[in-house]
Amino acid sequence: MLNIDKALLKAIRDQIESGADRELLVLLSELHAADLAEVLDHVKREEAHYLFRLIPKELKSDVLIELEEDVRLELLTSMTSAEIAGDVLEGLDSDDAADVMADLPEAKVEEVIELLESDEQASDIRDLLSYPEGTAGALMAKELVQVQSTWTVARAIREIRRQADELEHVYTIYVTDGENRLTGRLSLKHLLLSAATTRTLVSELQQDKELISIGANEPAERVTKLMERYDLVALPVLDDEGRLVGRITIDDAVDVIIEDAERDYQLASGISEDVESRDDVWTLTRARLPWLLIGLAGGIGGAYVIGAFEIEKNPGMALFIPLIAAMGGNVGVQSAAIVVQGLASSSIDTGDIFSRLSKELGVGLINGLICAVLILGASAALGFGTSLSITVSLALLCVIIFAALFGTFVPLMLDRYKIDPALATGPFITTANDIIGLMIYFAVGSAIADLF
Amino acid sequence: MLNIDKALLKAIRDQIESGADRELLVLLSELHAADLAEVLDHVKREEAHYLFRLIPKELKSDVLIELEEDVRLELLTSMTSAEIAGDVLEGLDSDDAADVMADLPEAKVEEVIELLESDEQASDIRDLLSYPEGTAGALMAKELVQVQSTWTVARAIREIRRQADELEHVYTIYVTDGENRLTGRLSLKHLLLSAATTRTLVSELQQDKELISIGANEPAERVTKLMERYDLVALPVLDDEGRLVGRITIDDAVDVIIEDAERDYQLASGISEDVESRDDVWTLTRARLPWLLIGLAGGIGGAYVIGAFEIEKNPGMALFIPLIAAMGGNVGVQSAAIVVQGLASSSIDTGDIFSRLSKELGVGLINGLICAVLILGASAALGFGTSLSITVSLALLCVIIFAALFGTFVPLMLDRYKIDPALATGPFITTANDIIGLMIYFAVGSAIADLF
Repeated sequence: MLNIDKALLKAIRDQIESGADRELLVLLSELHAADLAEVLDHVKREEAHYLFRLIPKELKSDVLIELEEDVRLELLTSMTSAEIAGDVLEGLDSDDAADVMADLPEAKVEEVIELLESDEQASDIRDLLSYPEGTAGALMAKELVQVQSTWTVARAIREIRRQADELEHVYTIYVTDGENRLTGRLSLKHLLLSAATTRTLVSELQQDKELISIGANEPAERVTKLMERYDLVALPVLDDEGRLVGRITIDDAVDVIIEDAERDYQLASGISEDVESRDDVWTLTRARLPWLLIGLAGGIGGAYVIGAFEIEKNPGMALFIPLIAAMGGNVGVQSAAIVVQGLASSSIDTGDIFSRLSKELGVGLINGLICAVLILGASAALGFGTSLSITVSLALLCVIIFAALFGTFVPLMLDRYKIDPALATGPFITTANDIIGLMIYFAVGSAIADLF
Repeated sequence: MLNIDKALLKAIRDQIESGADRELLVLLSELHAADLAEVLDHVKREEAHYLFRLIPKELKSDVLIELEEDVRLELLTSMTSAEIAGDVLEGLDSDDAADVMADLPEAKVEEVIELLESDEQASDIRDLLSYPEGTAGALMAKELVQVQSTWTVARAIREIRRQADELEHVYTIYVTDGENRLTGRLSLKHLLLSAATTRTLVSELQQDKELISIGANEPAERVTKLMERYDLVALPVLDDEGRLVGRITIDDAVDVIIEDAERDYQLASGISEDVESRDDVWTLTRARLPWLLIGLAGGIGGAYVIGAFEIEKNPGMALFIPLIAAMGGNVGVQSAAIVVQGLASSSIDTGDIFSRLSKELGVGLINGLICAVLILGASAALGFGTSLSITVSLALLCVIIFAALFGTFVPLMLDRYKIDPALATGPFITTANDIIGLMIYFAVGSAIADLF
């Protein structure tokens, strides 16, 4: 099930209404936790509560972690701290447990942690919550399989059996020295396949070439880049002293990649909060209003520019206002998008500013000349008059070149001053280019009017 | 190394110039294949050829597969078919080998395949090349570890050892019946940890619950959704008869996720080809021109709309042309972005068209009213005159509501007719809303002018 199955959803809601708990349980028990979560996301709040109470205890935590944040919070707030500690957190890995806790108010978090049976789990969660959001530390899980390089293979296998018992996937076995510093890795495949005797030492089997790791305080962005670049399924996380403190698995990195892409896309489209189509009208409205207000202010600025030119003396100039404004905006957005993606993939850095600008000058010049010639021909052919046609054509050339340079420059500058360059895309660049484009247009218009 | 290290790059280029091959080899041998590929991507073409010749044979294929497509093609075309078959393809998994071949001209592909030593590899590559791009089959690799459910654990382990020898990662062991149909899976962890004797049957250990797979002809989009949703590291691929034909690993799915996100982002920004900042001026120009031509046509349309209104009789109307055009564009892009993301994440489907439109009506109404009141107040306070202020305010309300509905409707319609809804975002929606916004503005202006 990928799209929520409407027939299934209807069957479930009908059975809730008729109180057919036994039939419901049969239906629900056939679903994967992720699908069950999707059902809960799509029913009414009271129905979600009803279904969640029905779900077998061992499934509850898996379902909870897959829910949309607002639905999860809704279900959590209806539970006592003891229920959260006992029914939910016990079944979760430390990273998922910390994610759940991060949604709760601080006082409740303390209460829940106090109630946890396992001291180790309590201290793991406390540790993970101590890393700021957006760092590798906040993404990692404490669960991992670790052996020491001085152990024999026999001891290592015993320890791996013990440690792996709690893990869903093993991926990689980390090898550390006596001080818990990462020195290598051991693949389960190698262990299973190697011809080593049980008395072979781990240090003889471990691989230490290309051992890629990340510091707990490094940004999450670097995590996804490392994992993507080196095709990793798990990335070990080290503290400042090089001690192994956790690992990040690829499924969590994939979630970060998708979230970041959605965020950049929304920023480029003028949406300032992380929203989805299923959010309510008010949330959607609020996420979109800030950019509209910028557009509004830009529009008033545009009115002043046009007013300053005394449009009534040459009203024909009005005809091409939309063209000039639109083209400036379009070109600026294109240029900014290329910079933002280049910065995101590290294929350009802020030091490249002059080479970027000169390349954009080339692109702007070619596109500007093509568009200028086309509009000159079209405008003359359609009978808009020589003077106006020349004005539009010349202004368009200037606007396209300027917009290309401006759209490149702004995100590079933002990045240099550690401001998210994606903020520059969308309505901001469009609005700025609108106004400056109009200024160029009317300046050219005045000059041409003086000539003829 | 994530950003290319400029000092390293300079050292390498200096040593190429002075022909210090031995020092170069030392430098290169310390790099990961992905980093070596980045170096080749960043040096001049002749330098890339020089370095590639120096790289040890066993590294060549790993480097080649990580290169940018144009650099890879450049290096490949300088090699003979025998070199490609012997030096490159031998070291690659079937999916990577097929990717390399997909870049080459068809005649060369046949030549290279004929020259492969292993008949199995030749038939694997032929099979993979037979799936159209964008399908699960084109993404999968033929390499996987597979046991039969009727085997004993002892035989299974022997077979796994043999099969896994060629694989980098094992992830999951697939269990099939006598007809090669997938019946379950076995985790390496379970095998290592289970208390099973060597005479236990595979069928007793295999898991068949939540066995997720995909058909070879299903779209790549579904692959990434399944893997993301169910947190999979490998996904088995079945043919139409349910026989296991390959598996897709998460690193390849991550590449698809990132490519798709970049593509959607570029479409929303008016860039029609997959380009990067490092592409040459001509490629960048060509990718951007189509959208500029749409904008140009839209601008001429706008000129006709304004011309039809006889702007010279009421030149004040010109002042707010940029505001109306910009706001229509911004709102339309916002609405389309929410639909495109909703469709991509399957949280809305085309059947929801009326509920989506009514929600957008709400959002448009609230944002429209807020903006209309603000512009009415601002315009009156700034002395733009009552009649013009009322016109702008009323028109803005209508334009925002219309643009919200239009921006929602168009991508939903495109999706219904199997056209990529992302095409609707960016300049297309902006341009259409520009023109229609102007029509609304001047219609309202005429009506108000008649009133006063």
